[in-house]
Amino acid sequence: MANERFTITYRISLYHDEDINSKIESICREQSVELPRSVLNPYIEQTIVGSLTRLDRNPDASYFAQIAYPLGNVGLEIAQFLNILFGNISLIPGIQVKAVDWSALPSGLLPGPRFGIDGVRKLMGVEHRALSSTALKPMGSTASELAAMAYEFAAGGIDLIKDDHGLTNQVYAPFEQRLEAVSASVNKANAQTGNTSWYIPHITADGDELFRRYELAREYGVGAVMICPQLCSPGALSELASRENGLPIMVHPSFSGTFVLDNRHGFDKAFLYGGLWRAMGADMTIFPNHAGRFSFTLKECLDIVHTARDTSLPYKPIFPTPGGGLQRKSIPYWIEKYGRDSIFLIGGSLYQHPEGIRAAAIEIRSLLEEAVYED
Amino acid sequence: MANERFTITYRISLYHDEDINSKIESICREQSVELPRSVLNPYIEQTIVGSLTRLDRNPDASYFAQIAYPLGNVGLEIAQFLNILFGNISLIPGIQVKAVDWSALPSGLLPGPRFGIDGVRKLMGVEHRALSSTALKPMGSTASELAAMAYEFAAGGIDLIKDDHGLTNQVYAPFEQRLEAVSASVNKANAQTGNTSWYIPHITADGDELFRRYELAREYGVGAVMICPQLCSPGALSELASRENGLPIMVHPSFSGTFVLDNRHGFDKAFLYGGLWRAMGADMTIFPNHAGRFSFTLKECLDIVHTARDTSLPYKPIFPTPGGGLQRKSIPYWIEKYGRDSIFLIGGSLYQHPEGIRAAAIEIRSLLEEAVYED
Repeated sequence: MANERFTITYRISLYHDEDINSKIESICREQSVELPRSVLNPYIEQTIVGSLTRLDRNPDASYFAQIAYPLGNVGLEIAQFLNILFGNISLIPGIQVKAVDWSALPSGLLPGPRFGIDGVRKLMGVEHRALSSTALKPMGSTASELAAMAYEFAAGGIDLIKDDHGLTNQVYAPFEQRLEAVSASVNKANAQTGNTSWYIPHITADGDELFRRYELAREYGVGAVMICPQLCSPGALSELASRENGLPIMVHPSFSGTFVLDNRHGFDKAFLYGGLWRAMGADMTIFPNHAGRFSFTLKECLDIVHTARDTSLPYKPIFPTPGGGLQRKSIPYWIEKYGRDSIFLIGGSLYQHPEGIRAAAIEIRSLLEEAVYED
Repeated sequence: MANERFTITYRISLYHDEDINSKIESICREQSVELPRSVLNPYIEQTIVGSLTRLDRNPDASYFAQIAYPLGNVGLEIAQFLNILFGNISLIPGIQVKAVDWSALPSGLLPGPRFGIDGVRKLMGVEHRALSSTALKPMGSTASELAAMAYEFAAGGIDLIKDDHGLTNQVYAPFEQRLEAVSASVNKANAQTGNTSWYIPHITADGDELFRRYELAREYGVGAVMICPQLCSPGALSELASRENGLPIMVHPSFSGTFVLDNRHGFDKAFLYGGLWRAMGADMTIFPNHAGRFSFTLKECLDIVHTARDTSLPYKPIFPTPGGGLQRKSIPYWIEKYGRDSIFLIGGSLYQHPEGIRAAAIEIRSLLEEAVYED
């Protein structure tokens, strides 16, 4: 393995008096030996240092540079994979990670999603339409208040009822109390309607507490769990995705913004939300949709959607889950843009429905069932 | 506790047609309830939503906005503290975290450093001069090659001999082999010279493996450990700093760059490297020094140095540790700029010394011992 390599493709922008060859050379060394070549022996120089395998100049004067790194530099640790992907060069302006050739990575490194689109559809028993999701909020509500909302959403036909990502273990609605109350009310609604709505608790927590909450959630029979990968250890998502009899995992982009807001630096949005988190094990990837409260362009969102489902990756396709300000009335528009293999995450717009959240949920369910899917 | 608040100060820049009041209002809600006020009940609106406590307009047309959040929204979890600090708003351009009033946080949340400058000096037995550090590299070297280098560095008088942050558990020099070999050679040099050089292994790893490596390192009697906080779970640094009979902790900025490279977004550099990581438990904070391989300005570096030692924070002052391209010859200049309570991390420049690394180490030691410290 030590002599095999995998590639990372960076989009490189030049500032001031930088030249492309020196910048590539500095990436190759910074992400491996961190020494000038003059003090390297020939063995190290040939087998350890990153090497340029392809270079393309873009019309906007940026470059795509594909650099090959030895698999031996990574080993089988996700923290070290990220270290090589973007560790020290995160501190150098004008470098954006665009792609990784996932299939060259050792199979034990990143597990990919356990379920993906097909697996989640099968568990949900929903084959032909897009899915709906909403968030239980606001923070400050008690567990029984959240459970009452969850009942209304489930009775109205929302598929995936997740905690707001701000709900963790606050005194207002401590995790286990909330888990117990919300699970019970969603189960009750399911029994009455014959639908399969899932409660998706947010389990992000420090250290092993994350795993304790995961196991608790499983004991309560929830449909899936949600974590914020950037607020957990780099390996947490993969560890959850690799567990025996694991649950589907929804991921939330909280705390990830600095990686994607600068188009010349960090991670390409589709790479992070559609590629990396999928490789790490997410089944459903939430992203801030265009025209909501955040600033992603339509093209960027379409890129995320396509990458999440790209069948050329060696992982199961996953559900793109646009959210962050989606309006009830806009659902037909987004169905047309993103297609049936999508989860539409609608929060505030349901809470603002003049006839209440159950009516809002019924309306969304009808929209999804009656939509004409062109894909 | 639920009714008490702590404040976060953001530097806010406006884009396009944004106005400051709406942007502040959206931060206050995004980081708490994530709902429009129209659907909040008065109790939630008064006790949960963030509230503006101070607003100053800067000469450059940006603003400093101080927002108070209920401690109850955080609880005692570091992941949730970061979620409130910068979770969803990480996805909104033009928001930079500048300060937190640490003293308002519950004492159980962030432990601060166990040792700080005085504690590390006492353990090292060095009272009156700045300290030196270097990195064992390049990746690809065997454990015994690294141990041989460590011996030379220690024999020459380098104080803190750390692993390069790229060394984890690769087959080239597996963690425990390296730990055993390097510890032994540093101990041998110490016995011969009467000096106290420390080996500082890099223990960043996925999940519980981090803690296993920490305990192993302690068993081998190392002086301190190094982690990359951004490549560990948010709570890992604090958990290490809180352990019984804990070791001093050096932190490395790998993978943290996207948080600090945009001056209008993310974290102020001094806040992250001098404030947040100190609050989390670091004793020595590495940052990419001005005029090295990275792009921080001298003023930004001085800010980091001052914040790391700022006695108005409710934590012990810690060692600023400039690195990332420091040259041997420049040490007197940096001593003058940063003063005696600094650790100078010099890597490549030692490896490039024409007479070898021991000669380089001796030279550095003399520089530090003979320097005139004005502070």
